[in-house]
Amino acid sequence: MATLDLNTLGEFGLIEAVRRRAGDPGRRWRRGIGDDAAVLRPVQGRDLVFTADALSEGVHFRWSTTDGRSLGRKTLAVNLSDVGAMGARPLGFLLCLGLPVDADSRRIDAFVTGLLDEAAEARCPLIGGDTVRADVWNLSVTAIGEVEAGGALRRDRARPGDRICVTGTLGGSALGLRLLEAGSLDSRAERRFAKLHQRPHPPYEVGPKLVRAGLAACAIDISDGLVRDLGHVLEQSGCGAELALERIPLLSGFRGECERAGCDPEEMALSGGEDFELLFTVAADAPDAERLTKRLGVRVSDIGVITRTGRLDFFRKDKRVSLANKGFEHFKPLGPRSDK
Amino acid sequence: MATLDLNTLGEFGLIEAVRRRAGDPGRRWRRGIGDDAAVLRPVQGRDLVFTADALSEGVHFRWSTTDGRSLGRKTLAVNLSDVGAMGARPLGFLLCLGLPVDADSRRIDAFVTGLLDEAAEARCPLIGGDTVRADVWNLSVTAIGEVEAGGALRRDRARPGDRICVTGTLGGSALGLRLLEAGSLDSRAERRFAKLHQRPHPPYEVGPKLVRAGLAACAIDISDGLVRDLGHVLEQSGCGAELALERIPLLSGFRGECERAGCDPEEMALSGGEDFELLFTVAADAPDAERLTKRLGVRVSDIGVITRTGRLDFFRKDKRVSLANKGFEHFKPLGPRSDK
Repeated sequence: MATLDLNTLGEFGLIEAVRRRAGDPGRRWRRGIGDDAAVLRPVQGRDLVFTADALSEGVHFRWSTTDGRSLGRKTLAVNLSDVGAMGARPLGFLLCLGLPVDADSRRIDAFVTGLLDEAAEARCPLIGGDTVRADVWNLSVTAIGEVEAGGALRRDRARPGDRICVTGTLGGSALGLRLLEAGSLDSRAERRFAKLHQRPHPPYEVGPKLVRAGLAACAIDISDGLVRDLGHVLEQSGCGAELALERIPLLSGFRGECERAGCDPEEMALSGGEDFELLFTVAADAPDAERLTKRLGVRVSDIGVITRTGRLDFFRKDKRVSLANKGFEHFKPLGPRSDK
Repeated sequence: MATLDLNTLGEFGLIEAVRRRAGDPGRRWRRGIGDDAAVLRPVQGRDLVFTADALSEGVHFRWSTTDGRSLGRKTLAVNLSDVGAMGARPLGFLLCLGLPVDADSRRIDAFVTGLLDEAAEARCPLIGGDTVRADVWNLSVTAIGEVEAGGALRRDRARPGDRICVTGTLGGSALGLRLLEAGSLDSRAERRFAKLHQRPHPPYEVGPKLVRAGLAACAIDISDGLVRDLGHVLEQSGCGAELALERIPLLSGFRGECERAGCDPEEMALSGGEDFELLFTVAADAPDAERLTKRLGVRVSDIGVITRTGRLDFFRKDKRVSLANKGFEHFKPLGPRSDK
């Protein structure tokens, strides 16, 4: 297989090489890469969702803390996380690939391999895009998904009394980034956290399962950190919330590694971004976390409740605590939006 | 209205400011900017089309030859040109806006104004995207359109005997870029060509009209230059073509301006990119160019025919000519694709 080199292949050649590797996008697509646009035949009774995310070298990633293959996977994963957070299944994606003229061809190769591996696993074919020269690596993906008509999980659908659930564990990606930046990857545990940052595995399937089961109406993926993303939900739903700090799910060994790395585990779990876990709300009488865990096939934790207060309050073992010293008072959810 | 400044507003603030300016995306969108993804309810009997294009500062544009407002318009226009070339009407678009930390806030403002002006005129609302820091301005747009089911105009649908038609005139944008780069904008004529480059007006409506009238099955927008884009059609359709050089439509004054600028008018018209006119093929017995012009509301010229040869041949007043000296023999259309 030819190496992917922008200088040898040129822009069209690189597009053609990626197209060949990507293969046929499958029967849902009447037309994939190679025309002015890709063509989809929608299915009656389903809505379509669209999301875009950009990653820029030096801002969102550095080659000192990741590699081509991991970056390829993550570039798509962060978008599919948004698709899943709407309760939708992925249908396809477009990639705008901005590459510097001196981009290493093995790295481009590794990037495309990682990207298409992730695409194959998620059954989300590459259906178009653009390849351009740029100053540094600049990646942007638009992902398309579909969900039962009217079933999309929305940020503005949390209601007072709802329980707040999250999948997986939090803070691991932020800790991993710290360890990568410090070059501290000696132990197996450290490398495990680094991997969480480099190759996140968003629970793509959970959103669609919640929609099909009619269990949730509101969800968001945790990309900016728990407090910030919960804040988006509260702001748009016009609600407040109470969070039980001791219930926030952490990986085993997380506290110890945080302490060794000189960072606060609570802060990492509350504000460390890029976990790409799913936050969703369920009615008070919905199945408990243990049952949800079985039903959804991923760990689910109950971490708090939606309130009418318009404030985010933190509790530790039923006692209210202030996290002002950690900067969380800057956060202002509140009140229904005035403009909508 | 607040100035758009990434440093003052931050990423979220900038997104929010753009969202407010963009306003409500209209009834087709169940959800616009502000959630994990935008939500569209498709219409039965219509296919959806998706296209993405990226523009990078220093590669696709320079601030010495354009301005924020023009760039905003063009960023969307080049994508809507692709949507129209599929025979589709625009439904909405996502923008990934990569901005350097020191990006001039008035320029960002002007860019957003131009972008949203173009969006309003094309009835193509902004429905999502991402704002990120980058080394230089990096813009990518994904546009979504819809077309009657099965009606999309494709690059692989040209048939021997078809007439080759183009809208508008060619070469003007390339000449305009030359004049801009030379700083030669003294006359009104020169400024007119410069404007063609800075603010192209793709004939968005023509593709959908061709589909509705059942007049064409094959089209491409002329973004890379006539010969190259016709080449994509010939390659994918497994055909050749004969082009009548004297019939290639030029703006009045074009030859004279080219000569003054020291460039070859024929070369500019054949290979100068970014005209964003539409090339399409019609059956031999379709209405003639004059009738098509009336019917489509834009100038249409017949410039040649599709052949079985697998070659692109040039004619001047019915005499075959070689353009090898202009580098056009490098072009190899040819033969049906082996991989599809």
